[in-house]
Amino acid sequence: MEFKKLTPYKEALKILLDDVEEVESEIVPLEKALGRVLAEDIVSRFMVPPFDRSAVDGYAVRAEDTFPAREYSPVELEVVEEVPAGMTPKKEVTPGKAIKVLTGAKIPKGANAVIMQEIAKREKNKIYVLRPVAPGQNIAFAGEDVKEGEVVMKKGQILRPQDLAMLKALGIKEVKVKKRPKVGIIITGSELVEEPSEKAFEEGKIVETNSIMLIGLVERYFGEPVFYGLVSDDEEKIGKAIKRAREECDLVLVTGGSAFGDRDYAHKFVNLKFHGTTIKPGRPIGYGEKIFIMSGYPAAVFAQFHLFVKHALAKMVGARDYEVKVRAILEDDVPSQLGRYEFVKVYYKDGRARVMKKKGSGIISSLVKSNAYLEVPEDSEGYRRGEEVWITLY
Amino acid sequence: MEFKKLTPYKEALKILLDDVEEVESEIVPLEKALGRVLAEDIVSRFMVPPFDRSAVDGYAVRAEDTFPAREYSPVELEVVEEVPAGMTPKKEVTPGKAIKVLTGAKIPKGANAVIMQEIAKREKNKIYVLRPVAPGQNIAFAGEDVKEGEVVMKKGQILRPQDLAMLKALGIKEVKVKKRPKVGIIITGSELVEEPSEKAFEEGKIVETNSIMLIGLVERYFGEPVFYGLVSDDEEKIGKAIKRAREECDLVLVTGGSAFGDRDYAHKFVNLKFHGTTIKPGRPIGYGEKIFIMSGYPAAVFAQFHLFVKHALAKMVGARDYEVKVRAILEDDVPSQLGRYEFVKVYYKDGRARVMKKKGSGIISSLVKSNAYLEVPEDSEGYRRGEEVWITLY
Repeated sequence: MEFKKLTPYKEALKILLDDVEEVESEIVPLEKALGRVLAEDIVSRFMVPPFDRSAVDGYAVRAEDTFPAREYSPVELEVVEEVPAGMTPKKEVTPGKAIKVLTGAKIPKGANAVIMQEIAKREKNKIYVLRPVAPGQNIAFAGEDVKEGEVVMKKGQILRPQDLAMLKALGIKEVKVKKRPKVGIIITGSELVEEPSEKAFEEGKIVETNSIMLIGLVERYFGEPVFYGLVSDDEEKIGKAIKRAREECDLVLVTGGSAFGDRDYAHKFVNLKFHGTTIKPGRPIGYGEKIFIMSGYPAAVFAQFHLFVKHALAKMVGARDYEVKVRAILEDDVPSQLGRYEFVKVYYKDGRARVMKKKGSGIISSLVKSNAYLEVPEDSEGYRRGEEVWITLY
Repeated sequence: MEFKKLTPYKEALKILLDDVEEVESEIVPLEKALGRVLAEDIVSRFMVPPFDRSAVDGYAVRAEDTFPAREYSPVELEVVEEVPAGMTPKKEVTPGKAIKVLTGAKIPKGANAVIMQEIAKREKNKIYVLRPVAPGQNIAFAGEDVKEGEVVMKKGQILRPQDLAMLKALGIKEVKVKKRPKVGIIITGSELVEEPSEKAFEEGKIVETNSIMLIGLVERYFGEPVFYGLVSDDEEKIGKAIKRAREECDLVLVTGGSAFGDRDYAHKFVNLKFHGTTIKPGRPIGYGEKIFIMSGYPAAVFAQFHLFVKHALAKMVGARDYEVKVRAILEDDVPSQLGRYEFVKVYYKDGRARVMKKKGSGIISSLVKSNAYLEVPEDSEGYRRGEEVWITLY
């Protein structure tokens, strides 16, 4: 039995994305929020910075007082207060007066500029200003970073170190993020062993590599992997594993048995919405009821993950900007079969993309040597060396 | 007191990289190796796959036997064995014979091609082959992925999910990776508070945001952050914190007190190799004895991290390809000051880069809204809108 019809990639992807739903949210402390996906818009309740502050170590003054200042005829001002670090000025700046402030200090009342200490010669409680300063100079104004009521971050933002800094500045100690979808991983195949050995080679066994790869990919793309181990090609055992995983997880990945071979049982337990697509490698992927039936070969599984599972997980957590697309000049021809949506592995560096020569579904070395992929749609016969294309980094 | 001379960025970076050393290695189980940096070349002790195997479900045959096959005059072959999943063939393929194999099965002796089952009509123990197959067809040859003795991965590789899959295929259960450098983080500043409040604003206090940002950045770039907390601007306390951190860590980051202000003590405890550079923002950075004296302002700290600390950490673990540089068309002018090495924050999307308008050292919102930076060297006055530039993603 063969696939009667291959579902075009974009059509299959749409079926998938229409079927998966956003997971619930949870509240986590800021310290645990790195890499998580924001589940709410963040609106500032106050201005950042909350008050005008000095951008330098120097003297808060009335700018007007300094306008006549020249190197050969300095303006004399009286220093009426020195504000230590972390303290706030008590006095006001009136005509002819100055207050010494450190970087970050609140600007005293009456002052509208700060003179850097390098251009004010100090003598006891006097300074001699050598050059004029403009109003506003060396002042970081209240709200110049964030206004009150401003939407600082939007739902769907993947939280990075600088985003956590901003949340902390806003007084947010706990943040609402999407839960990590639980992703069950079931590896099927009687030919699989945990490690290579002479005996294993003799018996025609293959080392199982999909579990460690999928665990890493699921973690990287917002999920919490739940590994159900290796299951031999036994209809009952596979059925049991799928039943358990679907009860415990938000999404299930089953590798092996995606085609219609004699030992391909997994698809019998799932009401599939599509089975068999135009993607290459990875054609026999099936999906239904939050369960993916994937290939057994690692390169096919990898393509299926990036073309389908990644997008499903991103939708489940509502993530924006979860992939980086860059332009690259091809260093090799990319011939592509009409009617197939090809996942072409490339090595991207400094604007150029070298195409991996070894393309089989069983080839792991090309995954190791590449860091991006090019998608070639069904209606394209491929690209020529020297052409500029869009690629997606992984 | 001011900086007498600003060290040009590339010169300062060279001083830094000449000074930091690679950390030691450690052995970790494969399951814990994601994101770690490989400390040895990986050489395969055997071929992958270790034997010729079938790429499809079908019949192993001698290709020659099928050459006369046509749809209207099929070739008849006798099926002498059926190899179940995960089992290895016991018989040989001799002229006129075929052995049924599943995907991934070892190719039986005597066979040199596999016929997909779709083009072989089965009747009892006979098949009728409708089309000829070429020698080698549908066979994944031994060593086609990796040859014996081949260098599969090099020292310095940052391990990704697919790399772990390859290591597992090679029978590697534990891998030698660089230790995570311990990076001490000391935040100084009497003006800092843990959270915003009316009282804090009244008193001119600032919310401390560098620690959570640096902890995240250090984790992302190969380090293990060790946070020593907030220290007020007290010479003795700062000296003690630096002493302790330098004893316990491979690298120390001190924020605040990098300039020569009255409360800037940190640099007094370190024999600095450079202090004051041409970078903007972040000019007053100092470095010596594995200690960075950094700014207090978050945007300056962020630039200092990416221009200096990140490269130091990458060198300490010997990481290659730790940043992604992409070409982008500028959507805005980028004026730049001659003599300054500017760190310009941009938002990159689909090949275009929008320049952040707010550039002050105290501005966190521009860090949040951007995802990449453009470096403008000292001898450049900047770039024009529409120009194509290289940017680095963060």
